[in-house]
Amino acid sequence: MPRPKLAFLTDLVQAITGTERIGRKSAPPDENATRKALARPAPERLAAACEVLMGRIGDAARVAVAEQALAAYAELDATGKRGFFDLLRDHFDADPTLIRRAFAAYDAAPSAATLVPLFDAVEPPRQTLLRRLNTAPGATRKLVDMRADLLIAMRNDASLRPLDADFAHLFASWFNRGFLRMERIDWSTPASVLEKIMAYESVHPMQGWEDLRRRLDPADRRVYAFFHPATGDEPLIFVEVALTRDTPDRIAPILTAPVAPEAEEATTAVFYSINNTLAGLKGVSFGNFLIKQVVAELAAELPALRRFVTLSPAPDFAAWLASGEDARGPALAKRLAVDGWQNDTAEAARLKPEVEALAARYLTGARNRSGAPRDPVARFHLGNGAAAWRVNWPADLSEGALTRGHGLMVNYLYEPAAIEAQHEAFVRDGTIATGAPLAAALTR
Amino acid sequence: MPRPKLAFLTDLVQAITGTERIGRKSAPPDENATRKALARPAPERLAAACEVLMGRIGDAARVAVAEQALAAYAELDATGKRGFFDLLRDHFDADPTLIRRAFAAYDAAPSAATLVPLFDAVEPPRQTLLRRLNTAPGATRKLVDMRADLLIAMRNDASLRPLDADFAHLFASWFNRGFLRMERIDWSTPASVLEKIMAYESVHPMQGWEDLRRRLDPADRRVYAFFHPATGDEPLIFVEVALTRDTPDRIAPILTAPVAPEAEEATTAVFYSINNTLAGLKGVSFGNFLIKQVVAELAAELPALRRFVTLSPAPDFAAWLASGEDARGPALAKRLAVDGWQNDTAEAARLKPEVEALAARYLTGARNRSGAPRDPVARFHLGNGAAAWRVNWPADLSEGALTRGHGLMVNYLYEPAAIEAQHEAFVRDGTIATGAPLAAALTR
Amino acid sequence: MPRPKLAFLTDLVQAITGTERIGRKSAPPDENATRKALARPAPERLAAACEVLMGRIGDAARVAVAEQALAAYAELDATGKRGFFDLLRDHFDADPTLIRRAFAAYDAAPSAATLVPLFDAVEPPRQTLLRRLNTAPGATRKLVDMRADLLIAMRNDASLRPLDADFAHLFASWFNRGFLRMERIDWSTPASVLEKIMAYESVHPMQGWEDLRRRLDPADRRVYAFFHPATGDEPLIFVEVALTRDTPDRIAPILTAPVAPEAEEATTAVFYSINNTLAGLKGVSFGNFLIKQVVAELAAELPALRRFVTLSPAPDFAAWLASGEDARGPALAKRLAVDGWQNDTAEAARLKPEVEALAARYLTGARNRSGAPRDPVARFHLGNGAAAWRVNWPADLSEGALTRGHGLMVNYLYEPAAIEAQHEAFVRDGTIATGAPLAAALTR
Amino acid sequence: MPRPKLAFLTDLVQAITGTERIGRKSAPPDENATRKALARPAPERLAAACEVLMGRIGDAARVAVAEQALAAYAELDATGKRGFFDLLRDHFDADPTLIRRAFAAYDAAPSAATLVPLFDAVEPPRQTLLRRLNTAPGATRKLVDMRADLLIAMRNDASLRPLDADFAHLFASWFNRGFLRMERIDWSTPASVLEKIMAYESVHPMQGWEDLRRRLDPADRRVYAFFHPATGDEPLIFVEVALTRDTPDRIAPILTAPVAPEAEEATTAVFYSINNTLAGLKGVSFGNFLIKQVVAELAAELPALRRFVTLSPAPDFAAWLASGEDARGPALAKRLAVDGWQNDTAEAARLKPEVEALAARYLTGARNRSGAPRDPVARFHLGNGAAAWRVNWPADLSEGALTRGHGLMVNYLYEPAAIEAQHEAFVRDGTIATGAPLAAALTR
Repeated sequence: MPRPKLAFLTDLVQAITGTERIGRKSAPPDENATRKALARPAPERLAAACEVLMGRIGDAARVAVAEQALAAYAELDATGKRGFFDLLRDHFDADPTLIRRAFAAYDAAPSAATLVPLFDAVEPPRQTLLRRLNTAPGATRKLVDMRADLLIAMRNDASLRPLDADFAHLFASWFNRGFLRMERIDWSTPASVLEKIMAYESVHPMQGWEDLRRRLDPADRRVYAFFHPATGDEPLIFVEVALTRDTPDRIAPILTAPVAPEAEEATTAVFYSINNTLAGLKGVSFGNFLIKQVVAELAAELPALRRFVTLSPAPDFAAWLASGEDARGPALAKRLAVDGWQNDTAEAARLKPEVEALAARYLTGARNRSGAPRDPVARFHLGNGAAAWRVNWPADLSEGALTRGHGLMVNYLYEPAAIEAQHEAFVRDGTIATGAPLAAALTR
Repeated sequence: MPRPKLAFLTDLVQAITGTERIGRKSAPPDENATRKALARPAPERLAAACEVLMGRIGDAARVAVAEQALAAYAELDATGKRGFFDLLRDHFDADPTLIRRAFAAYDAAPSAATLVPLFDAVEPPRQTLLRRLNTAPGATRKLVDMRADLLIAMRNDASLRPLDADFAHLFASWFNRGFLRMERIDWSTPASVLEKIMAYESVHPMQGWEDLRRRLDPADRRVYAFFHPATGDEPLIFVEVALTRDTPDRIAPILTAPVAPEAEEATTAVFYSINNTLAGLKGVSFGNFLIKQVVAELAAELPALRRFVTLSPAPDFAAWLASGEDARGPALAKRLAVDGWQNDTAEAARLKPEVEALAARYLTGARNRSGAPRDPVARFHLGNGAAAWRVNWPADLSEGALTRGHGLMVNYLYEPAAIEAQHEAFVRDGTIATGAPLAAALTR
Repeated sequence: MPRPKLAFLTDLVQAITGTERIGRKSAPPDENATRKALARPAPERLAAACEVLMGRIGDAARVAVAEQALAAYAELDATGKRGFFDLLRDHFDADPTLIRRAFAAYDAAPSAATLVPLFDAVEPPRQTLLRRLNTAPGATRKLVDMRADLLIAMRNDASLRPLDADFAHLFASWFNRGFLRMERIDWSTPASVLEKIMAYESVHPMQGWEDLRRRLDPADRRVYAFFHPATGDEPLIFVEVALTRDTPDRIAPILTAPVAPEAEEATTAVFYSINNTLAGLKGVSFGNFLIKQVVAELAAELPALRRFVTLSPAPDFAAWLASGEDARGPALAKRLAVDGWQNDTAEAARLKPEVEALAARYLTGARNRSGAPRDPVARFHLGNGAAAWRVNWPADLSEGALTRGHGLMVNYLYEPAAIEAQHEAFVRDGTIATGAPLAAALTR
Repeated sequence: MPRPKLAFLTDLVQAITGTERIGRKSAPPDENATRKALARPAPERLAAACEVLMGRIGDAARVAVAEQALAAYAELDATGKRGFFDLLRDHFDADPTLIRRAFAAYDAAPSAATLVPLFDAVEPPRQTLLRRLNTAPGATRKLVDMRADLLIAMRNDASLRPLDADFAHLFASWFNRGFLRMERIDWSTPASVLEKIMAYESVHPMQGWEDLRRRLDPADRRVYAFFHPATGDEPLIFVEVALTRDTPDRIAPILTAPVAPEAEEATTAVFYSINNTLAGLKGVSFGNFLIKQVVAELAAELPALRRFVTLSPAPDFAAWLASGEDARGPALAKRLAVDGWQNDTAEAARLKPEVEALAARYLTGARNRSGAPRDPVARFHLGNGAAAWRVNWPADLSEGALTRGHGLMVNYLYEPAAIEAQHEAFVRDGTIATGAPLAAALTR
């Protein structure tokens, strides 16, 4: 994306602040020039607006320019976005000369005082630019979506990673846990929020409004979400909970035939679906906070609850089995691949011990390159301090679950008194806390 | 502040997460040790909690530890705070070795990619620490107050400035204009907010609830404030507006005897008091945004309004007169210092042309060391793009106004169509836009 | 329904107030007796509770007893309800002896003063009973449903009419227009309200959530409803509005393919569906108030609107045609009954003038026994002061509309300046205001 | 108030509906005539508007006419109001001819069916008129104030009592307990509501905002109020509560020096002030419902509470003592009238047993003409089912309390398990439940 010329910049500022004009309208200096400025292609307008935002413009006018910049961005196609990301990376990068100069001063006398100018030199100007873009109304949501575009563009081009680091850095501040607000989602929630819940549910997709209602209206169901003031009624993450009397070993009864016990009689809260919503917030972790707060809320409201447990998928189990990392895996994978056991109780009963034994091994033994558990869901819950409580098979006969995990599901247990110690052991040396049922499966 | 030992850290974490324990209580490993940990002096607990926050603790447990840290900070006296600031500056500073290593790599091949690790090395760990402290409930407000403490400590010790830079950097992100919410303050506002408005009003202090009511309840009065989601019902800045038919030339009628015209008939909105509230937010500018948004709101609601103007103090006028920077100043200052003209109409009439002539010179000519206008209120409004419209004398006979400005007040005009150009000219070369009345006073 | 005995009454009160017990539980005097009281059949408990409510019970305990009475009512089947209505009519009727005595006194000296005791004697005790039942939480809604039951029971038994008069009398007070709150229904309305809108829409039934959304979310659509504080989130009546540039002559484009013009450009507000919701509120009129308030709200929000018009069904047109009241009717009815013109443009074009001519006659000439317009929708809108503007054929090809009105629809025009005069003329001598198009159709 | 003529009526309707005109303005038929109509004296306009309201006007136009009527009423002075009340009583009275005719039919065949027309004939048209006035925005509050005016006018003229019966009858329906909403009043309540609480508190008047704050902000204080949807933010009744560890025996510590225990440790809820607010709602009882609901709310929130007790004045004790109904009274009254015991501990100690003994007699023995307790506060609480628990002397040294009750205060105990039985015994035969301390005082 080429850098804009000065005359155009001036015209653009006049066009924007003349149009947007606080309160009253009045003719801008040269209507013709400003009209032309606004008619230029979106990439040019965007580049120019960014230039202006980094310049000597008044704080208040900045809001209008930031709005124009984001509007221009919204007109870009993939190529245009890619051009803009390149511009951000290259043109709004830190200046090596300034960095070298500041480093020299720091190097000569390292101190908190000499660090400040070095920090200022090292912080890429695009961070400031993003902060200024964020002054426009509704900008935060648009910047989150901009990063989602960036994540897509990055798949083919690692050179954009430094730019992503800037987004991640800013979002960690903006989406600080202290700014989040937890809310219960129920049948009196506005429809505009509910349809988002429906659209974002990807663990156990919903079939429509009646399905949605079944998950949040009955007395034994709860849905909670985090919201951020700058992204309005957009849920950032939500968790679906069923209140039961036992730790469930399959998903179907929860999804399809809820025999609602009185919530007061439930002893177990089952977290059976957790969904992040905005792709652009990748890496900004909310899930642990949400689970903790939901546990606290439910414990306070329903003193009879004694157990907080998940019913989670094992999305990498099928690939691991097939990989042959465990010698018995491929043969078992073949038998599971044959349709039939789903409707053949005897065959399923024969398979069950072996599947669960290997599932237990998979959860406790399979590691990724960093040495963490291979299963991403396991990484999340164990990293939160939960224990791998029990493997359940067959537990989910939906197509996706069969393909990715042969129908396996796992209960992770959140035992409040043990969470911190288990978390620390997991982080320190990878120790995985296991429940008695899972330990038993391991011995098979 | 000395750094804490490991055993104490472990005990402290257990004490905190054992106490706070999600949902249910259960006995921590060694009650005695943890009790002792919580009984240690506040500085020790604070230092230990910070250490823990930077360590391998679970995200969720972090909230509890952050809460403890802020609670311990609240127990500190000035010396304790000073010790904590030193600790932040020195112990949570960036590591020169890491910086040098990252710089070497960058220096060898400067690029956005090599900049990322350098940025990470240069960002002081205390920024991360402050972000983690900010996960506790209500933390943002406490961190703002912590910076207010820091600003006081800095008065005698410039070595704390780097630490302040970190606060300023974080607050600029957290208090981004996009996160602020403007609200009208009126007689149906909760009393808990109103008493804060009363307490924070320092331009024209209020005498109590009846005075407050006179400023926000009548149809010709408005008060607007900015709020931030993380600081709840704490107004961050507020502006008081009177709707009139003329540009006022003195404050008393506005404060004391409002003959309310119907708001619909008003042609002029007078901003007669703007107050920032939290000392810890120094340097985070809200005023320009607030004024712009209030102008937009009033213009939309009351189409008859044609003029947006301030009635502002001139807090440095007396000092400037006395300084002799203008040769006629000291003599005039002496005549003004003699009590009497306040009640002597003839004398006041004699003084008026001279005072206003010098006031006009003061506003347009007096500069501080940076070359900006000497008067801080002028700097603010001119920097926002307003014009210095008229000087008014005598306009405020309250004691403070007499002492600091000999009773002078200034109207700054916010002419929407002219704001941006005036702002740019002011920033570019210090050009001060003046109104016809002020220009006339200059020629006297 | 037999009247309950005293011992049972005492036991019942103890059972109820012992169970419900303010704040704390404590054993009631004789647990066995009270348990038995609560185990009696619902009709007995209901009769007993009513007896107690009319007796010497404390105001606060009344709430608990009223709650029990309504709970017992909810258990009744049709026969049980019928029994209860008989009880209300006969047992809680006014006392002839008291009436005669009070009348004698009044008759001797008619005055406002002697009227008071007569009024008290004449007011049936069941009105007091209903008012006392209404102290229970949620009672108002339950009493409205009770009257809906009564209306059903009345179909076969005119002897219940006096009882209905009491309900109507009370509801007129309780649902006074001053207590209603108009709210806009849109996509941010709670789902629990939206599903009621969907269920209650009977003029043009909705096919599901997407259909609902099409009627309230686009910029050119509006839905408004009245709510009453005592019936919570239950809409009492709602009206659906489309904002258009022309007076529409058929319903399909409005229901199915909304090409949304910007609401700001619309010149016409079309009220295309008005629905009362609670059968038990029959005769309590809200529609006129709602239409008036919606007109006022839209006119204030969208100054470009110049026309407020309905697109309404003509539900009795088919029956009137067939009746032969107009000699040409039966022949035309026969031709319309033959399927075919719906898909035969030429035939429809041939039929159109004749259908519209007879439709115009039907609207302006056909009367019911009371001399009012035969068409109930015409009665409503003309009674509100609207004009019969235009007949449109074919305008609605849905099955119900074909059956009842051969697909005819009518525009009634609400011309604000003319409403009052038209209303008065209509009430005074039945004068029907007509629009030019309808007048033209009359001359055919 | 003379009845208006027809031409004037027509002009008035045109003036009102032409002015108010739904949505758009358009010239009314004869501007001159309508202008004149609106310029007529308020009594004429009011009488005319009432006439119109009872006539053939459209439901929607009625709202505008009702509004005009209430506006005209607001212009009346005491004489004008009196004239209007006479008009209501005489002109909008029931018609004896219709009554006689309806009675004859009823008398011939008394039944629920013949009762309906009799009821309609007997209900004074002014009830319908008041219901129609109530359709105007904000009308309910204005009608409540109208009745307050009526109550004043009635002091000198019993002939208005029948009119008052109509108001009372309607208000009992409109202010049905089912329509009331209880809300906690605290420091986050809008100032506009708080100032009403301050103004209406007459039991222990407040000295200003700080005093108000002391009564509702500390953790050991609560204020609750009832609101009605049609009277908006006007509290109808409110109760002030202190949470303590003992049953208090004097008011000063509660009002002046609250040493707030944590609310959680309190065992006793003390209702120390109950205030009705709107004079026009006289006879519509809310207090019993409010107390019951507050007890329920507090019991649920603070399980440690075991005791719900009042600290109440005895406003008629001084008059009773002086009356000599008890032979020892006058002498004691004389000793109490001598200033001095307030500051003379020994004298107060000597007086205490005798005062308390007579106070106990006063509460349990003194009756009014109807046989109910002479003390109005006792009537209220005993009628609610409370017990007279203890007499406390000296308990309130404020001037009013000394004058009316020699400083006596009474604790009434609300024992949930006993309320209903005590209420019934009190209503049945006047039995007064007493606490052990009061019983002991009786024996002295």
